[in-house]
Amino acid sequence: MKISPLQKARNEYQPKTPTILTQEPNKVTVKYREDSAGNNPSEGVKALFPLTFNSKSVEFIEGENSSADTPRNVAVILSGGQAPGGHNVIIGILDGLKAASKDSKLFGFRNGPGGILADNCVELTSESVAPFRNTGGFDMIGSGRTKLESREQFEKTVKVFEERGITALVVIGGDDSNTNAGLLAEYLADIGSKIQVIGVPKTIDGDLKNEQIEVSFGFDTATKTYSELIGNIARDSNSAKKYWHFIRLMGRSASHIALECALQTCPNICLIGEEVAEKGLTLDSIVETIVSTIVERSKQGKDYGLVLLPEGLIEAIPEMNTLIGELNTLLSEDEDYFSTLTTFEDQAEWVNRRLSRDSSYVFSTLPNEIQRQLLMDRDPHGNVQVSRIETEELLVDMAATAIRERKSRGEFDGKFSSLTHFFGYEGRCAFPSNFDADYCYALGRTTALLIQNNLHGYIATVKGLAGEASEWSPGGAPLSQMMNLERRHGKDKPVIKKALVEISGAPFRAFAAQRESWALETAYRYPGAIQYYGPGEVCDATSITLQLEQGRSSAM
Amino acid sequence: MKISPLQKARNEYQPKTPTILTQEPNKVTVKYREDSAGNNPSEGVKALFPLTFNSKSVEFIEGENSSADTPRNVAVILSGGQAPGGHNVIIGILDGLKAASKDSKLFGFRNGPGGILADNCVELTSESVAPFRNTGGFDMIGSGRTKLESREQFEKTVKVFEERGITALVVIGGDDSNTNAGLLAEYLADIGSKIQVIGVPKTIDGDLKNEQIEVSFGFDTATKTYSELIGNIARDSNSAKKYWHFIRLMGRSASHIALECALQTCPNICLIGEEVAEKGLTLDSIVETIVSTIVERSKQGKDYGLVLLPEGLIEAIPEMNTLIGELNTLLSEDEDYFSTLTTFEDQAEWVNRRLSRDSSYVFSTLPNEIQRQLLMDRDPHGNVQVSRIETEELLVDMAATAIRERKSRGEFDGKFSSLTHFFGYEGRCAFPSNFDADYCYALGRTTALLIQNNLHGYIATVKGLAGEASEWSPGGAPLSQMMNLERRHGKDKPVIKKALVEISGAPFRAFAAQRESWALETAYRYPGAIQYYGPGEVCDATSITLQLEQGRSSAM
Repeated sequence: MKISPLQKARNEYQPKTPTILTQEPNKVTVKYREDSAGNNPSEGVKALFPLTFNSKSVEFIEGENSSADTPRNVAVILSGGQAPGGHNVIIGILDGLKAASKDSKLFGFRNGPGGILADNCVELTSESVAPFRNTGGFDMIGSGRTKLESREQFEKTVKVFEERGITALVVIGGDDSNTNAGLLAEYLADIGSKIQVIGVPKTIDGDLKNEQIEVSFGFDTATKTYSELIGNIARDSNSAKKYWHFIRLMGRSASHIALECALQTCPNICLIGEEVAEKGLTLDSIVETIVSTIVERSKQGKDYGLVLLPEGLIEAIPEMNTLIGELNTLLSEDEDYFSTLTTFEDQAEWVNRRLSRDSSYVFSTLPNEIQRQLLMDRDPHGNVQVSRIETEELLVDMAATAIRERKSRGEFDGKFSSLTHFFGYEGRCAFPSNFDADYCYALGRTTALLIQNNLHGYIATVKGLAGEASEWSPGGAPLSQMMNLERRHGKDKPVIKKALVEISGAPFRAFAAQRESWALETAYRYPGAIQYYGPGEVCDATSITLQLEQGRSSAM
Repeated sequence: MKISPLQKARNEYQPKTPTILTQEPNKVTVKYREDSAGNNPSEGVKALFPLTFNSKSVEFIEGENSSADTPRNVAVILSGGQAPGGHNVIIGILDGLKAASKDSKLFGFRNGPGGILADNCVELTSESVAPFRNTGGFDMIGSGRTKLESREQFEKTVKVFEERGITALVVIGGDDSNTNAGLLAEYLADIGSKIQVIGVPKTIDGDLKNEQIEVSFGFDTATKTYSELIGNIARDSNSAKKYWHFIRLMGRSASHIALECALQTCPNICLIGEEVAEKGLTLDSIVETIVSTIVERSKQGKDYGLVLLPEGLIEAIPEMNTLIGELNTLLSEDEDYFSTLTTFEDQAEWVNRRLSRDSSYVFSTLPNEIQRQLLMDRDPHGNVQVSRIETEELLVDMAATAIRERKSRGEFDGKFSSLTHFFGYEGRCAFPSNFDADYCYALGRTTALLIQNNLHGYIATVKGLAGEASEWSPGGAPLSQMMNLERRHGKDKPVIKKALVEISGAPFRAFAAQRESWALETAYRYPGAIQYYGPGEVCDATSITLQLEQGRSSAM
């Protein structure tokens, strides 16, 4: 395998570290914070976590920790989609464990939670992890999407760990994985096991965020990568002056990524799923907004532009959400019959007759290609794969039709040519930005300290992230404390709620205050490629979203 | 308009400059090189350029140039697709003109050659160009695709320039634009005009390359940007271990971009159009190569991978080339009738009956969606838009079918899931790499010197580009000398030949020597984002292609 010059240079990078994390582990102890940790879980949640429920988050202070030097065998897994910085979390854990005791060991279980069930692991050493320092990807040990949630799986986990003498598990994952980590923690306490569980907040989507977690790792790097590409395309659009570029961005149901990219690049239009849902905007009204901007710009001689949209947009549009819901029910109930229909035409006809009158109408008005995507590209549970629906094509198709109509009525005499893009995989494994490299290493060292301080059922946190790394405040927050009850399949299930974009939040307000001028002017901002070296303002700044959320209004 | 921190920092960057370009312009003179400039044009070419044909390229040496100080009004246009560094060429010209005489003026004609015909220009000043220093895009004055080639256009150009007192034109463009610049130069000499014409070699495709031009500007930055994305996706593939990513890359008929990206990222498969054409590989045999790699990797437990393909691949496949040629003839001859057929089914039926037996068969075996793209997405001349054919979807579709067949025969028990990407617009307007920033600024300064030394019908060149910038050798080569005759529409037309990938060249040989091991191993190399700061080996290295062509075999 060949090593690129950047990889070689990044392997040498020393992450900037909060001061407390530079202390000897046996000189660091925990202090319970006085805050209520923000969330106020219901009695129902508390009842589900009788042993691990705790309302207090912790921070680290100088002080004796006599148990720090105890050699420990720790397991780590990467769970779910890739996010830049995962390797640094693991390396931070390893460095933190070894700093306390050379006899401690870290085992990486391969390919996600499934690796525990298959007892497939490797001992990670300073030598083996060295080529992964400050690199992107999860290729050090791989990731996977198996969910660790059933009692049988928990029992198997205990068995595997006991045979290996493992006394702590670190779950690096998103909201789902950390929810399950909380349930596992409670189970372990319940059976009297001494195995500790610590979570680490990972996801490029930015939706694992609350009073305790300022941002999940990976969001910074991924949005910088997408913003690089969007800025480049904006500049191309503004140079060639002949295309409207419609760019869909990853992010599941949350629009944090699209919003951050909009703040970074100042596009003509950025749709925010949460606003669409809150205002109940219809597909037609969204298309009308786009078309009127196209028409207005055209009057100014500008037959080009840039539209950003989140992949969750399609589900946020009320009538589409209803349609998708009906399709999911319909096709899971009659999966066997549906699978006998081999042509798209037969499928469409059958579906159309079974949908509600409203949904049938909506379905029939969609472009053929989108109808196909709704029916044919289904996940293993028979559900519509929302992330694979090409909403950018849907909007382009509908906008083009509306523009042709206006043209035939003599209301438009410009041109409308479009190009579409989808960005997601391009940013999940980039070399972590300095922010993510520093943050992730700090999360790893924090995780080691939480273990060494015998905490259980906590998620690692680092606060004050908009400030200097030396002043960041590492600590932890109880997983159970972040839970809310949701009704699923007729049962109350505790879940860590996905943080959606808040319409009243500072990032959305900053966007909303400027979008009208962005629509008609050409005010593109060109962030360029992530820089790891150079002036601090170029290579060390974090996301505009985080800065605004932390009250740094100078970010815009 | 908001300025990003990187843009602000890049505006301050001082390009590294060849020593001779740091001299006072009146202390620099030209020396005719003794070489024959590489190409050996036919007598036919010489006969078409009786006044501007010249076999000698020039370089600069120290010496008096008494005409340097003469104030000059110079025009500049950007022609064709965007390429990173165009702004620096213009700024280099301006700085070079002003260094000789403060009274010289540079006029940027807007939106390409069409801007001359519309007499739409702006005077560029040190103040007005400052925000564009070391930035990507052509937005300073815009670009366009109008061809400046007819006698009427030439006459109009002279009229516009004479009214403005403009005595030199700089054409920043690709092979076509520089061919036309050569024809304009001859025309001007023929009518006794004193207007000089100088070309500058621009194109990300890397196909404007010959003995005199080591590389066109923009290739370095564009391929670095694509390689960043490909490397990130490779790492994602190697982390999630569940997808085959098929990535199509811009580059028109040449595969330089795909080849450079392959050398940078070491994918499992990279198809090279020139090899396909030379060996006459069929679509089926290409699919078979892909499928056998998928099957072999699957046997090793690796149901994931990375395939790169150039956009020109589709035309390089002999039977597809024939089909596209027949379609172009058919639809231009019977355009009126064809346009009365409104459904795809009617169009396909009509076309199928008119194609040759072989092409009709090929057409009928293509996936429906590709058939549609061939018939419905046509350029203004009725030609198939090759660059919009989603060859990656074609290959995925055919590979998936072949794999299903093998599965049903019990010859394959792995999984094949795929994702497709197309990269092009993402890289054309990136902030130029240090190499392109330096090279383009040097090209601009060189252009000013060529004008000040009264050269006409030359293209600016900078040689020795794999070495240190201070030792680069700036100069010029006669445009007419690069021409070859091609038969077009029954007439001999002089054209600068596109440089295709040479199967016998060092870059292809380096690729071919390694591709078998890349196919089965997972040997991905992760270049990361372009760096403008940091260690020299990270931020100053040029493309592997250029290094190999210049005999630096250590590049691999």
